[in-house]
Amino acid sequence: MAHIPLPDGLPGIVGPMAYSPVTTKPLNELAEVLLRTNANDSLTQGERELIASFTSRRNDCFFCSTCHGAVADYLLGRDNNIVAQTWEDPTTAPVSDKMKALLVIAASVQIGGKYVTPEQIEAARAEGATDRDIHDTVLIAAAFCMFNRYVDGLATWAPENPAVYAEMGEALATRGYVNYNEPQPA
Amino acid sequence: MAHIPLPDGLPGIVGPMAYSPVTTKPLNELAEVLLRTNANDSLTQGERELIASFTSRRNDCFFCSTCHGAVADYLLGRDNNIVAQTWEDPTTAPVSDKMKALLVIAASVQIGGKYVTPEQIEAARAEGATDRDIHDTVLIAAAFCMFNRYVDGLATWAPENPAVYAEMGEALATRGYVNYNEPQPA
Repeated sequence: MAHIPLPDGLPGIVGPMAYSPVTTKPLNELAEVLLRTNANDSLTQGERELIASFTSRRNDCFFCSTCHGAVADYLLGRDNNIVAQTWEDPTTAPVSDKMKALLVIAASVQIGGKYVTPEQIEAARAEGATDRDIHDTVLIAAAFCMFNRYVDGLATWAPENPAVYAEMGEALATRGYVNYNEPQPA
Repeated sequence: MAHIPLPDGLPGIVGPMAYSPVTTKPLNELAEVLLRTNANDSLTQGERELIASFTSRRNDCFFCSTCHGAVADYLLGRDNNIVAQTWEDPTTAPVSDKMKALLVIAASVQIGGKYVTPEQIEAARAEGATDRDIHDTVLIAAAFCMFNRYVDGLATWAPENPAVYAEMGEALATRGYVNYNEPQPA
């Protein structure tokens, strides 16, 4: 049972987000601009969701890791099993060397900001990471240290059925965070 | 030196916020609605800033703890020394019993969402904490786990002069986060 009464049947963060629309607006806008960017010169949308899912897994947040893992799976190709392999061992996962170096930075941010070292930054730059890549990696990992704590700090309910996450993953990947709850054409 | 090139002379989070306006907009809006609320039935603005500062101190973030400590000092009365005493030992600090119980919850969130226990929630309710108090305490502590990691994960520069923070504290307390950088009347 959640620590405060939340509307029935809403999964994970959707419960507290329904409880507090005034804070939900900037939270969804942050997710939208941080995750659903596909700039030519920086991380793809799939890579951003992978960092979100990876950080959430390190924070042991079942809802966020599974949900954003499903978004990443949808974007990167579910059959490639990239998310599960990245959770297991980012150093051997089938991602670019740049992504491997950025995941090291994300793993440091998950522990605490001061764990990011100049050597980790230098290693990422050596693999082609730009200032924007580094900035966005740090902020995505930091933001999920918030989202994960919001979800688990209120003891929200999370569905267990993988099909639910697959559907959420496709919806969030294609419709995004700000428009997620808007009625869809029949 | 910061991990990415940032405009000179901007303290703490202001550097990366100037670098990335698109993410800054929702971040400032979140701070505004979460911290600058003074609802009759919930936490005061000063109490919210105290939770922000306390969480930042636990995350060892010099800039955020000092800056939001200065905001709380301005709102709660600097001579009362409430911020410093709360940093030192929240169980003996001159705050209400409700605040003491909420600070226990904030301290758990700082470690991780799952560290918040039903007993901590029950103890807060016994001191009069509402659902809104509990929700906002969890989200403020969670949000500062993000802001702190953003500030330190990019190795931003922080001023050391206490007078700089006192001035920032008054400006943020009175003008807020969204309008902070707007030109002021002469």
